[in-house]
Amino acid sequence: MTGPPLALGVLVSGRGSNLAAILDQIKAGRLAAQVRVVISDQPNAPALRLAADQAIPALAIQRRSFANQESFEARVAAELEQRGVELVVLAGFMRLIGPTLIDRFPGRIINVHPALLPSFPGLAAQQQALAHGVKISGCTVHFVNEVMDGGRIIAQTAVPLLEGDTVESLSARILAEEHQLLPLVIGRLAEQIRAEQVSEDGSSQG
Amino acid sequence: MTGPPLALGVLVSGRGSNLAAILDQIKAGRLAAQVRVVISDQPNAPALRLAADQAIPALAIQRRSFANQESFEARVAAELEQRGVELVVLAGFMRLIGPTLIDRFPGRIINVHPALLPSFPGLAAQQQALAHGVKISGCTVHFVNEVMDGGRIIAQTAVPLLEGDTVESLSARILAEEHQLLPLVIGRLAEQIRAEQVSEDGSSQG
Repeated sequence: MTGPPLALGVLVSGRGSNLAAILDQIKAGRLAAQVRVVISDQPNAPALRLAADQAIPALAIQRRSFANQESFEARVAAELEQRGVELVVLAGFMRLIGPTLIDRFPGRIINVHPALLPSFPGLAAQQQALAHGVKISGCTVHFVNEVMDGGRIIAQTAVPLLEGDTVESLSARILAEEHQLLPLVIGRLAEQIRAEQVSEDGSSQG
Repeated sequence: MTGPPLALGVLVSGRGSNLAAILDQIKAGRLAAQVRVVISDQPNAPALRLAADQAIPALAIQRRSFANQESFEARVAAELEQRGVELVVLAGFMRLIGPTLIDRFPGRIINVHPALLPSFPGLAAQQQALAHGVKISGCTVHFVNEVMDGGRIIAQTAVPLLEGDTVESLSARILAEEHQLLPLVIGRLAEQIRAEQVSEDGSSQG
């Protein structure tokens, strides 16, 4: 890949296991990216400590500290922009985002969802899958637009349901696949973004 | 498996490639079933000739020959019942069926659908999948209720979409999986149905 590592901003609400998977791939030299900032809407999210432990700027930005969704998102966008973030990764970020943030990173926000979209968007996707009785679920990485879990799909992995599966056992198997898929997709997008930049540089010389 | 081969009635509208797959498995001795009758709502369906060529009763029953959906379904049900059909298989049958038929074969009607339900029910499922941009589709065998493609799921197979896929290429790969999955499910149901009968016989002796 040409150019510096892709600058990532990771938005989280909880454990940050997908964040950990991204950091592991970076450390192993298999992902040409750098996490510039981790932002959580939950001040107690373990993901913040995970980031801080690796000397990555870790911010808690609570929605309730702002008058409205727009000013909350404007603050998040400002934190991302001032650190030069090129790709925003929602990794277990449990809040719907709107145009204020989306329009400042057009085509540069991705999310990972624990189902094979368009099946089971929204909350508790694994429980939805179990309740529906599907035999195959999975995970989806997609671009974020203003429809919840509705943006263009980038990649998916299928996960079979097993006899006796619970929400916990199914969630764990899907999560293991998320940890594989999300860094892969980030790597692919990093290559595309750098390739586009090279091509733009080339054409501007013409 | 205990007992005679499971008596099948197969409902078709077109080529009958899933019918052919069922007949192949029966001939190969891998499926303990017997196709007692093939019924098509389309008189020119190639599936009818396929059945007739193997000396299987093949009937064209057109909806327009009946005053209403109920009398059409009653006739279909009568043809199935008089041949002792135990399991009704919709194999490319392009017509929604209602309570008249469903209530006469409770829990004994299955359908194969070319998508991973609940994604993409209804017509042109492969085209829907391509248009939505999913990376994984597949096929589903499910029990039939009065909601189109809405009954309880029995089995599913995932099929990845490939770069450059067309409706034709995707449909062909999904169909190849249907040909594997549908006979497998019929075999599993045959074992369950015979096992239930043995258990009922046993308990009636008590």
